[in-house]
Amino acid sequence: MQELARALGTKIREQRKAKGLSQDRFALMCGVDRSYMGRIERGEVNITVEKLYQLAQTLECDPASLLPKLAESQ
Amino acid sequence: MQELARALGTKIREQRKAKGLSQDRFALMCGVDRSYMGRIERGEVNITVEKLYQLAQTLECDPASLLPKLAESQ
Repeated sequence: MQELARALGTKIREQRKAKGLSQDRFALMCGVDRSYMGRIERGEVNITVEKLYQLAQTLECDPASLLPKLAESQ
Repeated sequence: MQELARALGTKIREQRKAKGLSQDRFALMCGVDRSYMGRIERGEVNITVEKLYQLAQTLECDPASLLPKLAESQ
């Protein structure tokens, strides 16, 4: 699980940075606690598909684009 | 959330049927309780991204292919 969560967190962080958002700003926009967002990006938590859609909506990207390729997740 | 979970459950069910698997067989292969699999397919639960990958692995498909398009999920 860790590998998947870590790869997913990295993709979320990359997309956030591509949008020029700080982690604090992004957490605020998503209505997510700042420290929890840090744990998501570090791959320390296993988010739900619903949370994936919420983050993608804020990042204005397709949720599928945040999913790591299977090789990356093993 | 319900719309997303329902759309996701439908996609999982469609892919399962395309593989010719019964819900019982699919649940067994995934190591998931039979009644819980029914709830997933009916969109009554909000699965994690990790569970999405496990289901996709058993269905031998790309996890992203199970994700409903944004329009379907609203």
